[in-house]
Amino acid sequence: MRARKKKWAAEEIVENELIIAEGSEHNGKWEHVFENQHPIFVEIGCGMGSFIVESAKRQPNINFIGLEREKMVIVSGARKIRELNENGGSEPPIKNVRFLMGDAALLRNIFAQGEVSRLYLNFSDPWARRRKWAKRRLTHRNFLNLYKDILGAQKEIHLKTDSRILFEFSLNEFVDNGFQIRNISLDLHSSLWAEENIMTEYEAKFAAKGMPIYRVEAYVSN
Amino acid sequence: MRARKKKWAAEEIVENELIIAEGSEHNGKWEHVFENQHPIFVEIGCGMGSFIVESAKRQPNINFIGLEREKMVIVSGARKIRELNENGGSEPPIKNVRFLMGDAALLRNIFAQGEVSRLYLNFSDPWARRRKWAKRRLTHRNFLNLYKDILGAQKEIHLKTDSRILFEFSLNEFVDNGFQIRNISLDLHSSLWAEENIMTEYEAKFAAKGMPIYRVEAYVSN
Repeated sequence: MRARKKKWAAEEIVENELIIAEGSEHNGKWEHVFENQHPIFVEIGCGMGSFIVESAKRQPNINFIGLEREKMVIVSGARKIRELNENGGSEPPIKNVRFLMGDAALLRNIFAQGEVSRLYLNFSDPWARRRKWAKRRLTHRNFLNLYKDILGAQKEIHLKTDSRILFEFSLNEFVDNGFQIRNISLDLHSSLWAEENIMTEYEAKFAAKGMPIYRVEAYVSN
Repeated sequence: MRARKKKWAAEEIVENELIIAEGSEHNGKWEHVFENQHPIFVEIGCGMGSFIVESAKRQPNINFIGLEREKMVIVSGARKIRELNENGGSEPPIKNVRFLMGDAALLRNIFAQGEVSRLYLNFSDPWARRRKWAKRRLTHRNFLNLYKDILGAQKEIHLKTDSRILFEFSLNEFVDNGFQIRNISLDLHSSLWAEENIMTEYEAKFAAKGMPIYRVEAYVSN
């Protein structure tokens, strides 16, 4: 999870226009940041940004926001986009991503009710191992209730993990707390969904070792 | 799956009062067979009967019916009960089980609409390996629709399997066809459900090898 500390990282957090210093300032007004009213998809724990950058490239009519706790990590995603745009690696240039320092507990400060259309939880596994940590897991019912607040009519959560324990826990938390689930995969990379799947940094490593990746979409049906 | 042919098996099928020769004769009238109106739980593919016999012993106020295609296998379950009852292994004696030769395709002949309260699918894995066999899997939507007919208000299906492919397929078939799911386990024997779990013959073998057992309950919410 940790990147080595880089001298330039701290300054870049303020300077780079792709990195939002204070998310709460835009609460309810993210359409002004993106200068359009496209749906907003949020990745909680976006790491080095591979997933969100590629997602943004493929779906220019969606606005992506990556949340990441690690100061030094968040710069990598922004840098990926800048390099792609400067070197012509993406045509048209990618304008539909922003990065934010923060974590799931801050979501209510950052977004107004119903302002988000989809949440991505990719390999959010730090509290998977012990049952006593269940409350800290990002699919614990306390978090699910929080997500429901900021999610709009569709209320979609897309989860990927390599942890069987976290996946089992998450499936049960979803169905026990008003979510339905669909497109369940117990071995994503040998499934029908593999082709359109966008890998995170971790996922690429796990997949190379032949470990199964679990995936599910949770949603609230209207 | 196959037990060695035993000379006595064929005769016993007719003679033993626990084994019903022609299920369709009792369609809509199973309460007369059991002489009570307790809920009916059906295991499709009951094998040698370990699961259904132990289930019946623990829940005397439920009537259990085991379906099994293999002629020579079905006798084992009936024999287990007879031996338990004769040797005082169960007190009071087990009266709430019957066995039937047949398979899922016959369910509509055997049961009236809503006559069954719960279905068990334990290790029904013969068509798990190849995708082209999907239609024969007992959780294919064609079978689910059939189950919906014979299941009453509760419409519960309890599934256990050691096949990740079949489990993934089943979860998706359930949620795509009007079922909700709950109590999902990706490693039953190390889960909260392990204690009350009743093992089948196959399950005991798999578990001894340390292979994970998958389990889920599907239901139609009212």
